[in-house]
Amino acid sequence: MKVLITTVPFSDKNRLPLDLLEQNGIDYLINPLNKKLTEDELVEMAVDFDAIIAGTEPITKKVMDAANKLRIISRVGIGLDSVDLLEAERRGIIVSYTPDAPAPAVAELTMGLMLTLLRSVQLSNIEMHNGKWHRFFGRRLSEVTIGIIGVGRIGLGVLQHLKGFGSPRILANDKSVNNKLNGMHDIEWTDKETIYQQSDIITIHTPLTVKTKNMIRKEQLLSMKEDAIIINTARGGIINEQDLYEVMQEGYLNGAAIDVFDFEPYTGKLREIERCILTAHMGSMSVDCRTRMEIEATEEVVRFLTDQPLEGVVPEEEYVVQRKGL
Amino acid sequence: MKVLITTVPFSDKNRLPLDLLEQNGIDYLINPLNKKLTEDELVEMAVDFDAIIAGTEPITKKVMDAANKLRIISRVGIGLDSVDLLEAERRGIIVSYTPDAPAPAVAELTMGLMLTLLRSVQLSNIEMHNGKWHRFFGRRLSEVTIGIIGVGRIGLGVLQHLKGFGSPRILANDKSVNNKLNGMHDIEWTDKETIYQQSDIITIHTPLTVKTKNMIRKEQLLSMKEDAIIINTARGGIINEQDLYEVMQEGYLNGAAIDVFDFEPYTGKLREIERCILTAHMGSMSVDCRTRMEIEATEEVVRFLTDQPLEGVVPEEEYVVQRKGL
Repeated sequence: MKVLITTVPFSDKNRLPLDLLEQNGIDYLINPLNKKLTEDELVEMAVDFDAIIAGTEPITKKVMDAANKLRIISRVGIGLDSVDLLEAERRGIIVSYTPDAPAPAVAELTMGLMLTLLRSVQLSNIEMHNGKWHRFFGRRLSEVTIGIIGVGRIGLGVLQHLKGFGSPRILANDKSVNNKLNGMHDIEWTDKETIYQQSDIITIHTPLTVKTKNMIRKEQLLSMKEDAIIINTARGGIINEQDLYEVMQEGYLNGAAIDVFDFEPYTGKLREIERCILTAHMGSMSVDCRTRMEIEATEEVVRFLTDQPLEGVVPEEEYVVQRKGL
Repeated sequence: MKVLITTVPFSDKNRLPLDLLEQNGIDYLINPLNKKLTEDELVEMAVDFDAIIAGTEPITKKVMDAANKLRIISRVGIGLDSVDLLEAERRGIIVSYTPDAPAPAVAELTMGLMLTLLRSVQLSNIEMHNGKWHRFFGRRLSEVTIGIIGVGRIGLGVLQHLKGFGSPRILANDKSVNNKLNGMHDIEWTDKETIYQQSDIITIHTPLTVKTKNMIRKEQLLSMKEDAIIINTARGGIINEQDLYEVMQEGYLNGAAIDVFDFEPYTGKLREIERCILTAHMGSMSVDCRTRMEIEATEEVVRFLTDQPLEGVVPEEEYVVQRKGL
């Protein structure tokens, strides 16, 4: 029994996941390239493994063709855009994930990015280190309208944190109204166009699907307030990177924070935009959340390989999303 | 009647303060050097003015000797460390301030700095803009112990915001227990030494007085956890800048955020420390708070010069602090 661990870093702050594998006599290989793998790299690496403990690298038909012994894909995290669920289903490959574990860390990072952008902390920090003193004006959360697109586990966490800041107006959009929100906040449920036009801060917490890919292009960006702030800690590709670069290059938008990219590691043009905060897909990277994700994903593989009942199997609705292109 | 406005920027986002002066036929001069004035610069500038609408520049005996017509000092903000209150009292110069207006903006900036430091956002941002990809591990507010030194208006605001983050342990120190806190949080009131030793994040919200000047020196810094984070949005000089530089240069402390400095504009050595966030005394610089501060300070000067009852006169307890060196 051999497990390929593609996601890196892995077991870096807590050895328990590797201990679990070893205690159960399971061999493993941690991605020796120590970066997010491309499809071709994974094709080459995945041969002969029974299980993959996976990050966000593409697990496609081509990969599954090569990984001829593969029986389970255990995702460290929530997004399933990187896995061809229908192809896995066809081959009887189980797909599991850890949907709850990353949410608290992503929600907190999002709050930090909002507050940083509202006060131009990153700009002042760079200027100060270069010996320049300029007192930037900013805004407070209790002065601005916040638009949340995607109110699942992470969007809910952001709302929870916003409670302590007295935000006057929160606009929200989701496929369905989240029942957990009852009585929690006065939220205006509205369409995405209204969010683009009326929000001072727009934050994205949807999965990447056929429907959300390139959801925010030049047209949507230019419909936003000229001094709006946009944050993407969800998935690369939901905001079109080239379009975001072009509108910001022309002076549009007060700031942006992008944690996720079309291609990671990111090396693109947004690096030229100083008022665009860039971070290295760190949404889930708090020690506690990351550890929980790794343990849960590893436990699932151990359960599978030792014939115990599984606990993190991806529900049917995720297959429906890919089947119907939702 | 002539008013000197030393604080800059002034009336930048809202013209009301200048309108108020003009409507009342009051002449004014806005600090033409457009930076925080030194004592000598103020000595030269302040002659002939009846009132100063003041920032944090030193208003000393020497300044009052030169400003022979001065009858009121109206501070835009809360700190009175820059004003020699006892000398003003001796001369019958009224001192007023706007103690409530800046607090919400300072508290929010502090929250942003905490979240940014916990996740190394500023480090990843700089690396990403330079084309380097490294996923930093971080911590969440709900994993760490937070120490608050000084629980007045601003410390209270920080506590309010922390409510939405579920922080497990909050240590607090103040001259007196703040009654407004009753039932708001489970807080452990403790001495400063315990806060230094046990906190993961230490944030300072005291005034600068004889007692808090150099309150945190090398000894205190080295008593903190090696991976602690320290934030000063209060006043320069409370943390000794040279000592902070030296301990961080040696690799001690995970991060720091310093918004206030001994001498502003700051040009010192902390600029060499990348994990020390530096901002340009921007605590109160949200448009709403700054505007409120400027309007309140200007209204007070107008009231004084038009013989109406004053509303922002500094209370006796602030004089006691300077008289007794508290």
